[in-house]
Amino acid sequence: MTDQYAQTREDNRSAGTPAVRWEEPPEGPVLVFLDQTRLPAEEVELVCTDASALVEAIRSLAVRGAPLLGIAGAYGVALAAARGFDVDEAARSLVGARPTAVNLSVGVRRAQSAYQAALARTGDARQAASAALAAARQMHQEDARASARMAGHGLALLDELQPGGGHRILTHCNTGALMSGGEGTAFAVALAAHRAGRLRRLWVDETRPLFQGARLTAYEAARTGMPYTLLTDNAAGSLFAAGEVDAVLIGADRIAADGSVANKVGSYPLAVLARYHHVPFIVVAPVTTVDPDTPNGAAIEIEQRPGYEVTEVVAPQVPVTGAGGGVPVAPLGTQAYNPAFDVTPPELVTAIVTEEGTVSPVTAGALADLCARSRQAVAE
Amino acid sequence: MTDQYAQTREDNRSAGTPAVRWEEPPEGPVLVFLDQTRLPAEEVELVCTDASALVEAIRSLAVRGAPLLGIAGAYGVALAAARGFDVDEAARSLVGARPTAVNLSVGVRRAQSAYQAALARTGDARQAASAALAAARQMHQEDARASARMAGHGLALLDELQPGGGHRILTHCNTGALMSGGEGTAFAVALAAHRAGRLRRLWVDETRPLFQGARLTAYEAARTGMPYTLLTDNAAGSLFAAGEVDAVLIGADRIAADGSVANKVGSYPLAVLARYHHVPFIVVAPVTTVDPDTPNGAAIEIEQRPGYEVTEVVAPQVPVTGAGGGVPVAPLGTQAYNPAFDVTPPELVTAIVTEEGTVSPVTAGALADLCARSRQAVAE
Repeated sequence: MTDQYAQTREDNRSAGTPAVRWEEPPEGPVLVFLDQTRLPAEEVELVCTDASALVEAIRSLAVRGAPLLGIAGAYGVALAAARGFDVDEAARSLVGARPTAVNLSVGVRRAQSAYQAALARTGDARQAASAALAAARQMHQEDARASARMAGHGLALLDELQPGGGHRILTHCNTGALMSGGEGTAFAVALAAHRAGRLRRLWVDETRPLFQGARLTAYEAARTGMPYTLLTDNAAGSLFAAGEVDAVLIGADRIAADGSVANKVGSYPLAVLARYHHVPFIVVAPVTTVDPDTPNGAAIEIEQRPGYEVTEVVAPQVPVTGAGGGVPVAPLGTQAYNPAFDVTPPELVTAIVTEEGTVSPVTAGALADLCARSRQAVAE
Repeated sequence: MTDQYAQTREDNRSAGTPAVRWEEPPEGPVLVFLDQTRLPAEEVELVCTDASALVEAIRSLAVRGAPLLGIAGAYGVALAAARGFDVDEAARSLVGARPTAVNLSVGVRRAQSAYQAALARTGDARQAASAALAAARQMHQEDARASARMAGHGLALLDELQPGGGHRILTHCNTGALMSGGEGTAFAVALAAHRAGRLRRLWVDETRPLFQGARLTAYEAARTGMPYTLLTDNAAGSLFAAGEVDAVLIGADRIAADGSVANKVGSYPLAVLARYHHVPFIVVAPVTTVDPDTPNGAAIEIEQRPGYEVTEVVAPQVPVTGAGGGVPVAPLGTQAYNPAFDVTPPELVTAIVTEEGTVSPVTAGALADLCARSRQAVAE
């Protein structure tokens, strides 16, 4: 079974980094991703020829980040349809690949609905497959537009909080173009501030255990010429204490109806530190991240990932010697606690910035209004 | 120059792990340490034949931890004296090896004073060298006794805070036998709870960037049969939120006169989290860690360590490919913020446990009383 393979990326550094592409070579359609587990050491593309290969790529975090997961999920359904696989089965397995990310299931459902509607209307599987692909492409474009609008709203908020700019922003994990149809969420706001000449520094949390900050955010910051400095997650406290952080900007994997934010583990401690130091804690995410069916933080299922991500260091160029594919840093047999996400309650969130506008203070009512406005905009 | 070399450790796992030994082979006295940078992968001993080799071992963190640094500093002076080197020059270079650790300079000064006093009294450099060695040995023994007394006071405090035991303790960095003349500071308290059947779990922060928790504390916990679980530093927030932490126990590298605690970077964020979650935050350290000449936290000099500790992963078994001796995890040219320590203000510290008793609440007056009591005990 060679349903997933790697290819060396053509050198197009100046052309930007599309995180996902749909291609149609003679042997059939494929989805092409940048393998994020190999960055920044190597730019290698991952080619998926069916949904199960995509599931594997999502599980291994080769493909990751809330908005990109939504787009990838939709393309995954389109891929199954175009290649004549069972679309419902593909959708089920894709939704199960990462339980916490709501965007993934939103994207999958959207392409699946388009497929089913077209099939019901035309009875033609090829037309239904085209409809699924059209839905995925539309989602991709919408995400790029949403990204640009979040960047605008986010920068306006930063400038309001600190007129005159000189923003020193702390961010966690990766929220840039690598996980988006556009330039991302929180990272896109920082990039907008940089382009406007109003970013003094981007503080980049390395984001253990998988180093998405060190590997991916630092890579994107370097490529875009931003002034950035990397730090271990636990050094953020010293920065706050020294008054070196003007705002925390993070993304979100799921936002409950009450405004609780599930995001990469390490976000919640930053929220507590930000509150203690009276620093704004700002979440930037598309409206699709808000899940009205999840009433509150306690209802968010948190993915527990394998302990070897903590007990071994897995990084590009690190040779495999441990069972988990990395180099052991802890004694053999060490048990690890490894939640992928944590939950920040709404009272610690200063604002949620979406493509439809900014919610602050964060309340269930304000979020519900935002979602209603967003649905209306889509319907119109 | 072969003034520092490695030897394979004889297998004496059951005999415990003396972190430092003074030996007198025919070719002259040496100091033998367990090389802590190679644990847990390998138990390799480092043999130092002069003070500059010891300075190098301290800088590279092969030898680390506040109490052990004090003992090592004293032995280092004794070694210079025994081998006929310039004792004052050796003392100066040893004190400068790690600027934040007050114990290091306390140990160095103590052996140096003993040397100078004996030299003034007898005019005989050999007798002066013996006096320096005696001072180092005395310090070593005192530290072992202090360790046992801290363990007793600390366990009494835990039992008072949570009668009946079942303690779930979160710790950071390494504070066990590897950095002590005895069983350590915070770790010794957890070990005492374990031996008394009252430890439910030791949560071990991995402690980036150098993984002292994953490499050293997990190693000591495994050897002593404690129930322990490793976590990334940024996952501690989730544990607090889930109500899984009954107390935080950490060591200290320097305590200012006002009770501000300098300890491994990542301690301060734990203190803020502990306060937010109403969990006791307990510092365990010998009285020598209190520095009456440092009035407050702002006066503590914080050592900034090389950026490559963050931009590269340095671990035993990881082959060298980066300039810093590890494997790069961030793009080339990435700048890093890498303070070795942070400072926790006294208002966030529930108690300071020393061999002379427990200070709670932490005030300048109570600390001054404790130091006076300690000086009196030494004088008697």
